[in-house]
Amino acid sequence: MAVKIHPSVDNGVKAGSSSFAGGTLKCKCTSDPVTVKIGANVAFNHVCGCTQCWKPSQDTKFSLIAVVSKDKVSVTAHPEKLKVVNASATIQRHACSVCGTHMYGRIEKDHAFKGLDFVHPELFDVAGWEEPKFAAFVSSIIESGTTKPEEMDGVRARLKELKLEPYDALSPPLMDLIATFTAKAKGVLAA
Amino acid sequence: MAVKIHPSVDNGVKAGSSSFAGGTLKCKCTSDPVTVKIGANVAFNHVCGCTQCWKPSQDTKFSLIAVVSKDKVSVTAHPEKLKVVNASATIQRHACSVCGTHMYGRIEKDHAFKGLDFVHPELFDVAGWEEPKFAAFVSSIIESGTTKPEEMDGVRARLKELKLEPYDALSPPLMDLIATFTAKAKGVLAA
Repeated sequence: MAVKIHPSVDNGVKAGSSSFAGGTLKCKCTSDPVTVKIGANVAFNHVCGCTQCWKPSQDTKFSLIAVVSKDKVSVTAHPEKLKVVNASATIQRHACSVCGTHMYGRIEKDHAFKGLDFVHPELFDVAGWEEPKFAAFVSSIIESGTTKPEEMDGVRARLKELKLEPYDALSPPLMDLIATFTAKAKGVLAA
Repeated sequence: MAVKIHPSVDNGVKAGSSSFAGGTLKCKCTSDPVTVKIGANVAFNHVCGCTQCWKPSQDTKFSLIAVVSKDKVSVTAHPEKLKVVNASATIQRHACSVCGTHMYGRIEKDHAFKGLDFVHPELFDVAGWEEPKFAAFVSSIIESGTTKPEEMDGVRARLKELKLEPYDALSPPLMDLIATFTAKAKGVLAA
């Protein structure tokens, strides 16, 4: 049996539709769910092993996470149920305080990704969102307790099989964006 | 002309000798140099783009850095010239206060790599040390100001050509070791 990565990709990565223009994210509450309207396709969709992102179950190794411009994000039902999970984190994750689902993550401080909200495409009510294209923070799944160190070779092999190139940070283009932001802030690169 | 990485590898990576058993590191001072005796071969040798490691010149993109057990490291001349560069850094880099060369870096706090000293093999007085095998913290060379974002594709291509696989963190085995240490400290993995 193949190593489980995330329910959205375990049966193969399903290609998105180039005409996808958004939809509604819904939390897991069976009554009065929080809904968030997303008015565009997502970008940089990936599976992520970090310990802070929401995952659909406790033993799921990776989360599925992407970004979208924050002006395309609006809470359309039950905003009163949303709470920020950890106010000191770079990404302020707004989660449903009843079911725990993270509905969107926003960066309020100066950062390379400020202006982009982090969302979980599996929560969309419609199909066609951009497919995940890489795997980030892979080694961190040891820290979450879902994976033993000796299982990591199998995890990385399965990710490669799924064409989700594994990285222990973000992907190189995103890491270069962060470094470029830092270089400009330090004044070693023209802003 | 090929993108310059580090003087030790720009003409090709030279394989080390399996019988190499250490030597003496010497700082760049022409008189009264600091010398450090290393009584073993180095391990995990790599080129590193981080902004904290010592590099042989200001425009060198990468440092060359490896580890050795700290009980194999002894200062054999002019210890009075050594000063710690940044006392708050995880790695305490002991540098010659006259020429600036970092002679060894030591971790004093609890850490996955505590007990290993970080040294620059290019300072050895003898050849044969283990050759570098990967490239770490590659995106960080943008932050050091040595490299423009648009030059990164060329840098990564040159690293691959040299068989120095580029990573924006450490290599996967080392990242897994750090995550394992963290998992044990958090109690999610048996110590």
